[in-house]
Amino acid sequence: MNSALNISLKSFSRRLLRHDNYYFVCRHALRRSFSDIQSISVVYSEYGDPNKVLKSEQKVINGPLKSGEVLVKMMMAPVNPSDINMIEGSYFLKPPLPAIVGNEGVAEVMEVGADVQALKAGDWVIPNQAGFGTWRTHAVAKSMDLKRICNDIPPLSAATIAVNPCTAYRMLKDFVSLKPGDVVMQNSANSAVGQSVIQIAKAWDVRTVNIVRDRENLDELVEQLKSMGADHVVTEEFSRKPAMKDLIKSLGKPPKLAFNGVGGKSATELLRHLGQKGIMVTYGGMSRQPVIVPTGVFIFKEVSCIGYWNSQWNYENAESLERDKMFDELCQMIRECRLLPPPSEIYNLDNYAQAVESAMSGFQGKKKVLTMEDF
Amino acid sequence: MNSALNISLKSFSRRLLRHDNYYFVCRHALRRSFSDIQSISVVYSEYGDPNKVLKSEQKVINGPLKSGEVLVKMMMAPVNPSDINMIEGSYFLKPPLPAIVGNEGVAEVMEVGADVQALKAGDWVIPNQAGFGTWRTHAVAKSMDLKRICNDIPPLSAATIAVNPCTAYRMLKDFVSLKPGDVVMQNSANSAVGQSVIQIAKAWDVRTVNIVRDRENLDELVEQLKSMGADHVVTEEFSRKPAMKDLIKSLGKPPKLAFNGVGGKSATELLRHLGQKGIMVTYGGMSRQPVIVPTGVFIFKEVSCIGYWNSQWNYENAESLERDKMFDELCQMIRECRLLPPPSEIYNLDNYAQAVESAMSGFQGKKKVLTMEDF
Repeated sequence: MNSALNISLKSFSRRLLRHDNYYFVCRHALRRSFSDIQSISVVYSEYGDPNKVLKSEQKVINGPLKSGEVLVKMMMAPVNPSDINMIEGSYFLKPPLPAIVGNEGVAEVMEVGADVQALKAGDWVIPNQAGFGTWRTHAVAKSMDLKRICNDIPPLSAATIAVNPCTAYRMLKDFVSLKPGDVVMQNSANSAVGQSVIQIAKAWDVRTVNIVRDRENLDELVEQLKSMGADHVVTEEFSRKPAMKDLIKSLGKPPKLAFNGVGGKSATELLRHLGQKGIMVTYGGMSRQPVIVPTGVFIFKEVSCIGYWNSQWNYENAESLERDKMFDELCQMIRECRLLPPPSEIYNLDNYAQAVESAMSGFQGKKKVLTMEDF
Repeated sequence: MNSALNISLKSFSRRLLRHDNYYFVCRHALRRSFSDIQSISVVYSEYGDPNKVLKSEQKVINGPLKSGEVLVKMMMAPVNPSDINMIEGSYFLKPPLPAIVGNEGVAEVMEVGADVQALKAGDWVIPNQAGFGTWRTHAVAKSMDLKRICNDIPPLSAATIAVNPCTAYRMLKDFVSLKPGDVVMQNSANSAVGQSVIQIAKAWDVRTVNIVRDRENLDELVEQLKSMGADHVVTEEFSRKPAMKDLIKSLGKPPKLAFNGVGGKSATELLRHLGQKGIMVTYGGMSRQPVIVPTGVFIFKEVSCIGYWNSQWNYENAESLERDKMFDELCQMIRECRLLPPPSEIYNLDNYAQAVESAMSGFQGKKKVLTMEDF
């Protein structure tokens, strides 16, 4: 194990410890009378600039729970690009307004109503679908809208498991039957999805060729991604040079699968290095450019271009055994420290405005995550 | 049955009659001593302008046949775009030079060598793979390089069955499970593939929305395609107007499948009208523009873009039962006059230069086909 990974694991263990303490606090001290709950939510009543339209709202939640309902206390929730786009009104999903912000996060079950078999107090849960509204301290929800998740992993991992690791897992699993030694390539390798791809592929003995944008601290980034298990990390510029062809050739077999989170030239470049009958899965379009595919790539290279949208997969698989299996496997990787959460900056829910502003001011290498620990 | 189809069927029957006569001439009169065969081929020794690099070559073929070999007499062979591109050296497949022109065509078996079980004299055959060299009067070939085809259809149909009808058949069959009443859409609907799509879809009770380029005799073309079974025929311009949305809406269900032979804006437009989880199959790129796919089409509309290349399918399925089944079905449609060959102009093989020049001077609505009837 190289030193960079060592460092990551140390800081990971520290986080684990901190959150384990937090977990016990949650579980044993914070449970209180159900008529006594001051719930705070971050809400918006119109689409617009997230720095302007968000506000904090407080209300009292009163019991008793109806049949099938559960009371949960949110623990942590990330600030994801889809949250920002949803507030702006530019996302594919437009929730009815006013809406509570937040699609992803982890909560602890405080109390369950009648006829709730699948959940009990103390369980950790994540929303089954996008649009739950995770940026709040408490929620009364239908138990069928929540999925139980293992509660022996760091809350930060649990809070960020549902979007990026699941996207990476499904993209690695659902389109090509990968065998150990096979090669996948991706652009945007430093994104949260990209980092999950690197780690899950490594756990499955699948090799990765990772493309990142050039930057000042490139060497540091390359080391960081390699410490996660990246086999090759190159820049967009390098990927357009003849040397890239040599690199691909040196792998012994061409990539079977490519993941595109960028679009534009970057995606066309991925297609150039993909093998015969390869598949390119588009999950994002960071460049805001469309995907451009030369006709011959379809006809003679027989490449397929498809998309992956995690919300849709969840919608179609809310009750599937495959979903349970995925979470079991991901939790196990997290327990074994083979799948780390993205480097994060934690903000108290009260400081949501600062977290949003920081998230929107460009990528600084750290995901912003809200904690409801103090509520 | 409307009058346009009536006319087509009459002219089809006339062709059938003419070629049936020809067929009997072939089968009974032209068989001759194997040491006496003057074979004429159209060949090229360098890639370049097909109007310049082609020449006619004569040689004497002598027996006896080796084990597994057959002697065939070519009957008809079309001038396809892929033949032109292959001569120019711009096609994906580059045959070793010198090469005999022609990828598609039908021949009659004159004599078979020892150990040939699958073929006998009088059988009609088509090449199993691209690059056979069909622009010649006679060939000695391995029996495994040839596929027996029904010989109770017009030779023109047999000569043009292997590329366009097969492409249409596979594209309609291999990517989406279509049910009666389902909708497919296509651009380049007036191409030979497009016409096959219309007719095969009609035979399977699948509705078609067909996009063509605007032209002087548009009404005539629309009538012609409708007489083949096209449900809707619109221009590229119309397909970009709001009225196109109304048309698609009026179908009751959106298209599940789109066929793209054009690329560029035309392909992007197809994607716009395709239903959720639809598939666009690219088989050509007439506009020489790449396929441009907005990221959201992949992610939120979950559309897949793939390619189809008939040569590759044949290569992988030379011996497959599925291929036999396809030819049986296509032959049956041809017998029932539900699948007509493309409107064609027949040239004697001697006049290949004229046929090539005419084929290259732009689409005049008729495929150029060489006949070896007089040899």
